[in-house]
Order: sequence, then structure tokens, then C-alpha cells
Amino acid sequence: MIPEGFRFAGARCGLKNKRNDVGLLVSDRPAALAGLTTQNLVHASCVDFMRGRIEAGSLRAMVVNSGNANCMTGPQGERDTARMAELTAEALGLRPEDVGVASTGVIGKLLDMAKVERGIADAARSLGPDPRPFLEAILTTDLVEKQASAPVGPARLYGVAKGSGMIAPNMATMLAFLCTDAEVDAPTLQRALHRASDRSFNALTVDSDTSTNDMVVALANGASGHRPSEAELEEALEQVCVSLARQIARDGEGATKLIEVVVTGTEDPKRIARTIADSPLVKTAMFGCDPNWGRILAAAGRAGVPFDPRQARLAVEAAGEEHVLFEEGSPAPFDPKRVSTALKSDCVRIDLQLGEGTTATVYTCDLGYGYVRINAEYHT
Amino acid sequence: MIPEGFRFAGARCGLKNKRNDVGLLVSDRPAALAGLTTQNLVHASCVDFMRGRIEAGSLRAMVVNSGNANCMTGPQGERDTARMAELTAEALGLRPEDVGVASTGVIGKLLDMAKVERGIADAARSLGPDPRPFLEAILTTDLVEKQASAPVGPARLYGVAKGSGMIAPNMATMLAFLCTDAEVDAPTLQRALHRASDRSFNALTVDSDTSTNDMVVALANGASGHRPSEAELEEALEQVCVSLARQIARDGEGATKLIEVVVTGTEDPKRIARTIADSPLVKTAMFGCDPNWGRILAAAGRAGVPFDPRQARLAVEAAGEEHVLFEEGSPAPFDPKRVSTALKSDCVRIDLQLGEGTTATVYTCDLGYGYVRINAEYHT
Repeated sequence: MIPEGFRFAGARCGLKNKRNDVGLLVSDRPAALAGLTTQNLVHASCVDFMRGRIEAGSLRAMVVNSGNANCMTGPQGERDTARMAELTAEALGLRPEDVGVASTGVIGKLLDMAKVERGIADAARSLGPDPRPFLEAILTTDLVEKQASAPVGPARLYGVAKGSGMIAPNMATMLAFLCTDAEVDAPTLQRALHRASDRSFNALTVDSDTSTNDMVVALANGASGHRPSEAELEEALEQVCVSLARQIARDGEGATKLIEVVVTGTEDPKRIARTIADSPLVKTAMFGCDPNWGRILAAAGRAGVPFDPRQARLAVEAAGEEHVLFEEGSPAPFDPKRVSTALKSDCVRIDLQLGEGTTATVYTCDLGYGYVRINAEYHT
Repeated sequence: MIPEGFRFAGARCGLKNKRNDVGLLVSDRPAALAGLTTQNLVHASCVDFMRGRIEAGSLRAMVVNSGNANCMTGPQGERDTARMAELTAEALGLRPEDVGVASTGVIGKLLDMAKVERGIADAARSLGPDPRPFLEAILTTDLVEKQASAPVGPARLYGVAKGSGMIAPNMATMLAFLCTDAEVDAPTLQRALHRASDRSFNALTVDSDTSTNDMVVALANGASGHRPSEAELEEALEQVCVSLARQIARDGEGATKLIEVVVTGTEDPKRIARTIADSPLVKTAMFGCDPNWGRILAAAGRAGVPFDPRQARLAVEAAGEEHVLFEEGSPAPFDPKRVSTALKSDCVRIDLQLGEGTTATVYTCDLGYGYVRINAEYHT
């Protein structure tokens, strides 16, 4: 499952409680680098830092800390990001420009660099083929670890991600790290990553809040010797990215279920799907297992995309059953109790057909008491 | 407080539990009519019906039912809306074209017209100067009644509103009825209402979900003989509309506090204020009395309006105190416990300065367990 020539590590330095909080992902040889970063105007210094690395197109190692986003921390925060790369380079015998940096956690607090320095040193001593210590090190409010893999012909692609809240589609909306031993140049990797992200991470929303620190990073070190076609690479990337996006939505803060919103027709089905996926009324109805199709259609109607409501067909799919809720301008005769029982499934698909045309899918989750608890009690 | 020549009534016909659900607002003489209706593509037949009345610019009576939105109910729903006007006209000795119709409540169910007919007849028999039976008749999940008044020179302006969930700014986002005995022609009334709504109802969001049935209706019957200037009229309208908008935000579903988001500077301060006001992370932080300025700035940063985060100044005002949280690119030194105590107030102002320029205010509320409870357990 793990591509050749990559090693991982995680260490606990005290930036957050009881879990690893500094992680390393290292390629044994120079790797082509592609990446996407948050488009939030308010963003962390590591985002600016990584934009420079992505432009250069090559990398040997990523250092990641959780528990502190190092965002809006001024010039000292910028120096701390650069210092994380230097410390990692020293520990691994690399040049600082070979190292990328990502941070995630609370906004507006300076990093405790004494702890970070110890964490990097500890992690560097424990590098190995097992990705689990690294997976643990990048989590914040996540309940589960997220990983996925796919073949790239004879080569392999492996990806990990973190993300649970402050998740909304705008380029990259969480941290994801992808590595492959396929042989790919940086521009090809960037193009393929961009298209795969559009159909996965950029089609993902937990709470419509775009984070300040998001990034997706892909490394290709060529260790397998296999040089895939761009289509082959893109297919593998899309498979892994969609899997990770679904895992993030299912693990959304307080979520009890994954919701896939599928819209067909109109000039912008993705915008309609996203409006439905972001609607607090739709999300609370799903939490309550309530087939409240009025809220779904009302959200579609305010998306700003023209369609004829009388032509709409709305169905939900859950627990292996499809239930039509609205058809040909009128409510369909469905059994509310039976649909409500089906909606207890932990995976629900909302299927809205508004005419001929392309289909867009957006991944989200329901909104329950847990989201309020986590975010009202997560004191800074 | 009540303008001359208007009468009110409410009756209980069984569309909802234990409260009046059919209301009448009647002018004793022809009144100039202005109005704004929801811009949701998916909207109720009463919205189309009222657009015709507003174009005609004159009205004698409004009939309103709560407990059923009569929305997405097909041709039968359209006939039921027209029938409500006919029944009201018969009961009051008016022409059907003198009567406007508004509905609010659950989407997608046909009205029980036998009940509505009885309700209209009962209400018509109990018309009087007391607006309270009418106020009760327009409520759904509202906990409190909302009314406001202002002088228009020697004339009077009185307004009532309902709204608690599915509230987001797009033209009119709830039901509001305004009546004045000032003498105003319909085009003037429409212009003044439009501007006043932009600074009140259209600056209001509870949950970013624009309703299918919203409307603001203003009636001017001239009974006082006073002909105000357009500025005088607009000032009174704005005063009443802002008061009603604040009352709706404070009574947002599950809300524990009113939040005023005030943004100064940039090319579109209202868009930034609205993005902050709609952010689930900001709203849950306010519910938790957490001065989490990172979430506020992160929401501003994703609004799509350019600004320099290093120039931002962010303060909260609550319980008579102002606390600066962020200034000149860095966190301000504030006492989190003291700010948290101040945030327990039921009225909080978030003040974000991003440079010179105009100021925009958006009214919203916090997001707590109550919102989830109401909307997850409100089964259709």
C-alpha cells in the first residue's frame, strides 16, 4: 500500500493532549511536488511558505504540527515556520529548501518552539515505513484517521488527510498529503492534482467555513520507475482524493452520517449541490432523519442558478433503498416513517434532478448537537 | 401607537397548535401598497399572488395564515391562495382584488381550506383596534411577538413581524406588515420601503436559509391627512424595520443573544459582515461566550472581498464594555475570562475595522443546541 522510498514519523511534544503532534513525511530521493493551498485571505505563514515550495516544484520532506495553526501570529510566526524547515533539514541532513511546512490547530497563538524543536528531533529518530505515527500527528478534532491508496499501474499512490471542522470547498480545505513512487514531473502532477481536487476536496463542506491553513500536497519520487500517463495518474489521484474527502465528511465535527448531494442539470449543478450541503436546515433535518424535502428544494431555490421547480425530481437513497420525495411539480406519495428509518443510515445520498446536463456531487455531513458542543466548548 | 383607520383580528382554526393561525389586517379606506417578496426561485403561490397586488399598488386587507406555507403545492395551492382572498373579500364586503394573502409554515402540504374558511369568518367577526390577536396569528416557531412603531410627523407608523428560522437576507426574509396613516403614494412608499429594508430585513440572517414565503408589506391609508416628505417617511420606516429585524434576530431559533456585526471599510463591508454573521464557527463561539477572534477573521478572509489583514482592528462590545481582540496585525492583550463574562450579555456587537470607508451592519444570533433541537425534531 505504501509507495517505495517514503518514510513516516510522529512524536508527542506537548502542543496538544495525549496524541502525537509533530509529524514527518520523508522521501528518500528528490520528489516532484504539487500542491494547492487555501484561498482564504486570512491565512497562516506556512501557506505562504508552501506556495514558494510548490512554485519550485520539488521537495524531500514535510514537517507538520497540529495543536497550533501558527496563523495571524505576525513576523514571529513567519520566522517560526522557516525555523521548522531548518530544524527538520538539520535533523535529516537536508537543505532547508528541501522541506515543506504545514500547521493546523488554534489560530493566533505563537508556537512553543522549544517543544517543536524537541518534537522534530524525536520524530527524525523514529522514521520508518509505518504511516500511523504520522497519521496521528496531523489530527485535531478528528475522531478517526483517514487514509486511502490506489495503484498507478505498477506504482502506488497513498494519501492521508486530516479535517473535521472549518471545512468548506475553496481549493484545499484541510490537510492532505499524497505520495507516489510513480515518476511524474511537477507540472503534470500539479495539473492532475488540480483536477482531482476539484472533484473531491473542493466538493467537500462540513460547515462552510474555509480554513486559514488548508493545503493538499502531492509528492512523486519515481522510485518505482513507472512513468504513468496523465490520465492514469489522474484516475488514481481522484480515487484517493474522493475517498479521503468522503472520510473527512463522515468525520465532520459532531456528524452522525455522510451525505452525498448529487445534482443533475442546470448551468451550475455544483453551486446548487453546495448550497444544499451548506444549508443548516437541510443538515439538521438529516440529523433528525426527517425527509423534509421542502428544505432541500428551498435551499436549491436560493442558490442563484435558474431552474424550473415544476420539473424537479428529488429522491433520497439510504440503506439500499431509493425513495422519491418530489416529482413533476408535486410531492410524491412516500411513507414518512419508512423514509425516516432509512435515513438512520450513516450514508445518505440526496439526488436532485433538474433536467438534462452534467452531474455534480458535493460531500457533507449532518449538523447535530455534537457540532455545537465541540465548537461552543472549544475555548481558546 | 396604532395608526388611524386600521383594524386587526386573529382566529384559531387548527392549522397549528394552541395559537391563533389566521389573521386579518384591514384598512378602513383604500391604502397605497408597497411590498418586497422573497427572491427564492422556489416560492409559494402567495408570493406570486402578492407580486400582482404590489404592481397594482393598492389594497384594503391582508389575510395571513400560519402553520402551512402553501408552497410547492401545485395548481391546487394557487387556487387556494386566490380562494383565501375571495373568502376574505366576501366576509368584509370588499372586492377580491382589494385583498392580499400571505402564508407561513411547513412547505409542501395542501391547506385544509375548510379550516381556513372557518378561520377567516371567525376573524372577520372580531376585527378591532387591538393588534395582539393578529400578532399571535402570524407566529410559527417564534417565542416572542415582534412589533415596533415610530412617528411620521403627526402621523404614525406601526409594524409587526414574524420570523425565527429560515431567515437570510435576500429582499424580504420573513413576514412583516407595516401600516401608516400618513398620506403616501405607492411609488414613494415602495422606494422608501426598499431602502429601509436594505438596512434592516436585508441585513438580517439567522441561518443563511432564505425562505420560500417571505414578504414585507407596507400599507399607507392617509387617514391622518399628513403628507410626509420621502425622507421623513424613510426615517420612520427604517426605525421600525431595524427594530423588527433586531427582534427577529434575538428570537432566532435557539438563540441566546442578538449579535450585531459591524464592518467598516473595503469595497463591500456588508458582504464581509454577512459572511461573519453566517459562519457556524463564529455563531457557536458566541454561544459558548468564547472571544475566538481567529474564527471571526477567518470568516472575513473567505468573504471574497480584498483587504489587508495586518490593518484589521477587531473589538467586541458587550455588557457596556469594549474589548479590543486584534490590532495592527497582532492579537491584542485581553483578559479572556473578562471578555467571556461580558459575552454572556444577550446583545453583543462585533466591530471589525478594515480601513476607511462606509460601515455596514448585519443582525444575527448565536447557534446553540436549541437550533439543532428545533430543526432536527420539527418533523413534517
